[in-house]
Amino acid sequence: MDLASKIRSIYDYPIDGIIFRDITTLLKDGDAFKASIDAVTESFKEDIDLVVGIEARGFIIGAAVAYSLGCGFVPIRKPGKLPAKKISSEYELEYGTDSIEMHSDAIKKGQKVLIVDDLLATGGTAEASVNLVEELGGEIVGLSFLIELVDLKGREKLKGYRVKSVVEFNGD
Amino acid sequence: MDLASKIRSIYDYPIDGIIFRDITTLLKDGDAFKASIDAVTESFKEDIDLVVGIEARGFIIGAAVAYSLGCGFVPIRKPGKLPAKKISSEYELEYGTDSIEMHSDAIKKGQKVLIVDDLLATGGTAEASVNLVEELGGEIVGLSFLIELVDLKGREKLKGYRVKSVVEFNGD
Repeated sequence: MDLASKIRSIYDYPIDGIIFRDITTLLKDGDAFKASIDAVTESFKEDIDLVVGIEARGFIIGAAVAYSLGCGFVPIRKPGKLPAKKISSEYELEYGTDSIEMHSDAIKKGQKVLIVDDLLATGGTAEASVNLVEELGGEIVGLSFLIELVDLKGREKLKGYRVKSVVEFNGD
Repeated sequence: MDLASKIRSIYDYPIDGIIFRDITTLLKDGDAFKASIDAVTESFKEDIDLVVGIEARGFIIGAAVAYSLGCGFVPIRKPGKLPAKKISSEYELEYGTDSIEMHSDAIKKGQKVLIVDDLLATGGTAEASVNLVEELGGEIVGLSFLIELVDLKGREKLKGYRVKSVVEFNGD
């Protein structure tokens, strides 16, 4: 199935010069959604204990992947959303920094973890997620994305890890 | 499986006197997560075209339910998050109002829709979600929740609809 054609491109959103890749048109198509989840999962079928998904669209992809694999799901959230003891990791924005959080008891040492998100762009949140998982002793089996914005070279921040994406876009 | 025992209760969070029901302890347990999704899905196996899930924890439950049913997923989001033409519905908070949004092209007239969220509390967001789905001509097959806070009587706002929940809590 041509999954790229199911994704809506919105020009100059949220700001001029940016093409926003809107996955809601893919998600609402049952066959495309199932094919997408199966494709995100495909390279990582063996031996995953936990899927980590990044708020908010990463919850959609990650939770379905976890269900498909029969394993647990761990949410990584924006600051101030998790109610129990947690750890935090910062990443750089164009101007300034932001951070993401995970519960301190989310992962046991040695558990095999797949990190899932809808989109690999500059790789900032992905790299911060790697840091959170490894701080708790999780073993990262890989990172799997529905979309990769190749021009932004997020992969360079994830050297040494298995990184897969289903649909690639360049800046056009 | 005793799913209630997998949910962590956090007292006086986010404010004094509130018991926060934290599902992250359930989600990270692969067997409990699978059993939860199957239980949320169980009463609604027939004839669903779309699962609608409410940001953010409703994405986790709803997306896995949609995958399990082989149907499409539609996100309902907080204001300002959706990139294309959208509709909005307000609901009341203790003081003031808030609103949620859905893309205008998310649902075709006559599609059979299951609304999914992690939690039925006062029913405000659930009722607003019903309004969004019906504004687009969707036919609501039912609403399915992982947790219901029975004391808060959210069901009363959903009269005339099939409402199911997997785990019930009273205020203790």
